[in-house]
Parts: sequence; structure tokens; C-alpha cells
Amino acid sequence: MRAVCVVGLGLIGGSVLRAAVRAGRPAWGVTSSTSDAAAALDAGFAVMSTVDDAVSRAAAQDALVVVAAPLPAVGDVLRTVAAVAPDCWLTDVVSVKQPVADLVARIVPTARYAGGHPMAGRSVSGWPAGSESLFDAAPWVVVADEETDPAAWREAAALGLDCGAHVVPTTASEHDAAVARVSHLPHVLAAVLAATGAGGGPLSLSLAAGSFTDGTRVAGTRSDLVLAMCEGNRGPLLDAVDDALGRLGAARGALASTGGLAATVRAGNSARAELMALRADGREEIRIDLTDPEAFDDLRSLGAGGGRVLRFEDEVAICDLPG
Amino acid sequence: MRAVCVVGLGLIGGSVLRAAVRAGRPAWGVTSSTSDAAAALDAGFAVMSTVDDAVSRAAAQDALVVVAAPLPAVGDVLRTVAAVAPDCWLTDVVSVKQPVADLVARIVPTARYAGGHPMAGRSVSGWPAGSESLFDAAPWVVVADEETDPAAWREAAALGLDCGAHVVPTTASEHDAAVARVSHLPHVLAAVLAATGAGGGPLSLSLAAGSFTDGTRVAGTRSDLVLAMCEGNRGPLLDAVDDALGRLGAARGALASTGGLAATVRAGNSARAELMALRADGREEIRIDLTDPEAFDDLRSLGAGGGRVLRFEDEVAICDLPG
Repeated sequence: MRAVCVVGLGLIGGSVLRAAVRAGRPAWGVTSSTSDAAAALDAGFAVMSTVDDAVSRAAAQDALVVVAAPLPAVGDVLRTVAAVAPDCWLTDVVSVKQPVADLVARIVPTARYAGGHPMAGRSVSGWPAGSESLFDAAPWVVVADEETDPAAWREAAALGLDCGAHVVPTTASEHDAAVARVSHLPHVLAAVLAATGAGGGPLSLSLAAGSFTDGTRVAGTRSDLVLAMCEGNRGPLLDAVDDALGRLGAARGALASTGGLAATVRAGNSARAELMALRADGREEIRIDLTDPEAFDDLRSLGAGGGRVLRFEDEVAICDLPG
Repeated sequence: MRAVCVVGLGLIGGSVLRAAVRAGRPAWGVTSSTSDAAAALDAGFAVMSTVDDAVSRAAAQDALVVVAAPLPAVGDVLRTVAAVAPDCWLTDVVSVKQPVADLVARIVPTARYAGGHPMAGRSVSGWPAGSESLFDAAPWVVVADEETDPAAWREAAALGLDCGAHVVPTTASEHDAAVARVSHLPHVLAAVLAATGAGGGPLSLSLAAGSFTDGTRVAGTRSDLVLAMCEGNRGPLLDAVDDALGRLGAARGALASTGGLAATVRAGNSARAELMALRADGREEIRIDLTDPEAFDDLRSLGAGGGRVLRFEDEVAICDLPG
């Protein structure tokens, strides 16, 4: 099994390291946080003292390097990769994909790179918040763009599967548009809801029940992490915010004019039902032959339809699609 | 202990009936839903066949009548109360308070009425969704307006406490403004978020993780219940939606111009911290003498500050306030 070098040991990176070890892979990590490093060492994991050391070891062992740093720190990590392991296997777990792809193309174009993004989060952060089971049954995007090296895609996808996730193939731009809607917009709306509730004073907050508690949960996430995530996906997030503003404005107009919210509420109810249906059982199994020249087209179609890769059997990807 | 007659045996009414019986009170219910009636009977509760029968029995036993019907059905229930128990003890558990107070003043002005609203909900409905512990440790508003009869307030508050809740005293209009922000707006934003996410197609929904799942949870509530709740609080909800639109528009403007979301995200983070602080331990105990002519002023101030009544000891309300 290919060794794994995880750069960044926060919630996501720390969980990748644990899950890779659980899968039986040789694995080590490195982090600029002395407290996360100490905690990981205490827990018995291999932690190198510098990024240079960690990535040099990856070069020596032909390991897969996983960049698990926040977007603003990715450039620095890639410069080290370019210096000591320029043709390494490379993936990342950053929450936007096009900006990371652009950085890789500029800084370390010789790396065998396929971007990744496990869709698992918590409103707490750092090594202590992670776990080896964080990704179990979660979606893990692995970017399959026209220019992605199929062997690099397979390496990144194998890591996601080994970590307990299922793999969703899509393009970087489609990923970024999708997560703007289902991951970044929820943070913006949670912040707006929390502030509007608190604007009603202590009485309002004292009456808050499940709808407000759930709707504001992710507003409790560390602001710098939310900002790095949302601001790093500015263009797609603007589109998503505009869509939400249009829908909220329409609700406002209907409430003011006729007093009716039926269109808003029914659309939301049916969208939520779609979400639940997508997660229901009764999915259809399909197989994609990875040696087929059109395999990447098939993988992208799979992802666009809500499908996922469950495992590899030799050169065949065993997948399923919503029924 | 005063007997309780619950009109409406859905999630909330059905839970009130169970919790009243758990508290040792004589209690019976009635519902227009034959399936809820059958389920309540099967579970061993007393269920009358008509509202007229149930309320007549309340008149005979000087019971507290609890209106647990959706707002559009409240007028009909009150007309029956006016016909067979015009001076009964009366409260309700409807999610808006001024519209119900207006109906009571018009239809059954002789009732000894104080409005109530337990702040506990689930996205499922009907008798089977209820439980005797639904209100444990939840806030339960009991309206203490200038014109509220103090004895009626005490009866309604005692029911809330007996059901395991703590009682939040406030005015009908302050209640309606507060719940617009923390209970109705969350439903509107959840609907907007769900629809915007689904607008991204199956790929978007397949990538949705905790932030989207939590943020859209209440969009799964039955649409007719959400509509009755939100549309019944039209004016205050418009104010809350306008507040949210302003905040979301400001976020949009900042993202488009500078690319920065710090003001939005930090305001949301600090509002969420306020919510958590309000729920933390270390609250200050205070006592309000209910025989004091200013007791209602004190109770309203208590509620405005995020405080609550925990229990009665004779004529004293034992309360606490956030520390």
C-alpha cells in the first residue's frame, strides 16, 4: 500500500492521518501547530519536524503527499514540494479545487496531482477534534478534469476509499459551484440567522429551540477557517448568494403582498425531500472500466448524476447511482 | 391539581396530554384526526369524541382548557368554548400570541385566559411524534400582558412547569417579534437554502454534509404546518426577513467589492457564542413575589433579560437569569 504524507494535522489532516493508519498504510504527518504536533505524537503517530523533512521522506518512499493546510498556506507547501519532491504523487483536501489546481499548475506542474475534498466537517477544529472514522460513508470528491493524470486520480481516489469514504468524480469548477451552494452558503446563512436572532436581544435567544440551534450550528466554527473557505471560493459563492438573495427576496415580496409563503416553503420542502431521496437505499450499481479511453467522461457523468465510486476491483470502478 | 382538557392531539397537544398525566393531573383530549384519536386511546389516554363534550367536561370540573389546534382552526374551538364554558381557565400552545389574544378577546372575552407557547418542536408531526418529555427543560412562554388576569397567568404557567418546562413571561407582541427571528425565520432560511442547494442538481446534493443537512432540517417539516405558523405571524416575520435580507445583501456587497466576509462571519460567530453563553451554567437566582402589585412588570423584565421561572413556592416565583 502506498505510503501517505499528510501536511497539516488539523481536523481534516489529522483525521486523514488516523484513517490512513487504520487502513494499514505507512503514514506520517507534519504541522506548523506545536500543540497539534504534540497531540499527534502523544497519540502514537509519526510526526516530522518540518515540511521539508516530511516531503523529502515522501520523495524517498514514492509516497502520496496530501496537502491539508488552509488555502492561504497551500502556496508555501507547494513550493517545498517543488523543491524536494517535484514529481511526487500529490493530492489535497482543501475545500476549493480550482484555486488549488491553479497553484499546482503554477508552482509544481510536474507533480502527479489530482485534487481532493472530503465532505466531512465539524464546527470544532484542530487535531483533537479529528477521528479515524470522520470520513466513513462520507463523499470525497476527487477531481477528474480533462488534464488530470488518470494514475494520479486513481491514487487520490484510493486514499479516499481507504479512509472509509466514497469517491465523487467531478471537475474542479463543478465542485466549486456545488460546494458554494451546499457548504459555503450554509455558513453565510447560519451567520445571518445567528446575527438576526441575537438582534432580538436575550428574550429572542432564550426562546430559540431546535430550528435556530440547528440553523446556526456552523456559525460556531472558527471564523478564520470559515473565511478562508468562503473567501477562497468567491466567484461561485457570489452566484450562490445571489440565488439565495433572489429566493429570499421573492419570499419577502410574497409575504408583503399576499401574505403567502407557499411557493417558498413548498420548494424548500421538496428540495429537502430530494436530499433525503438521494440518501435513501435502492441505488443502482454500475461499473466503469478504467482502461476505457472514455472512463473519465463516464466518471464525470457519474458524479453529475449524484453517483459515487464505492471501490476498485482491479481496473474496474464499482459505483452506484441514486435509484 | 387542576384538570386539563387538551383540544388538538398533534405533536404539541399530544405531548401536553402525556406530560400532564405524567405530572399526575386528571387530563383528557380531543382531536379531529381519527388516527391521532385512535393512537391516543390505544396508548391509554382519555379521548372525547367531540370538542363540545371535551369542553363541557372542562366546565363541569373547572379544568384548564388548552387550545392546541393550528391557528386557522382556533376560532372554531373558541366558539365552542364560548358556547359551553365561557368563563373557563383557558390557555393555548399556538406559535403566535397576538392573533390568538385577539381571537379570544373577540370570541370568548369572559374566559380566564393567558396565552402560552412551548418552544419545542420536531420536524415530524402528529400524535405518534409526541412524548411526555418533549418539554423537559424547554422554554414555555406564558403571556403576561397588562390586561392578563394574574390568576389565569398562574394557571397557564403552572401547566408549563408541570410539563417539565421553564416559563418565560413576556408580552404577546414581544413574543411574536422574538419567535419571528428565532423560530419562523429559520424555516424561511432553511427553505431558501434547500432550494438553492437543489438548484445545483444531484452533484450538489450528493456533496451536502453536516452544514447543509442541519441548515435544511426544518425544511422537512410538513408545509401546511410551517405555512400556518409563518403566515400567522406575517408582520413580525416581515421585519425579521427584512433584517436578514439586509445582512445577506451586505455580505453579498462585501464579497463582490472587497472579497471579504469578515464582518458577516464574525457577527454570526459572536451571536452564536451569545446563544451558547445564555445556555451555560452559572445563572443567578432571583425571586419574584407574585402578590406584589408590580409582579407583572418584574416578570416581563425577567423575560426580556433572558430569564425564566423555574418553580413556584406558594406565592413566590423562583426564577433565574443568565449570569
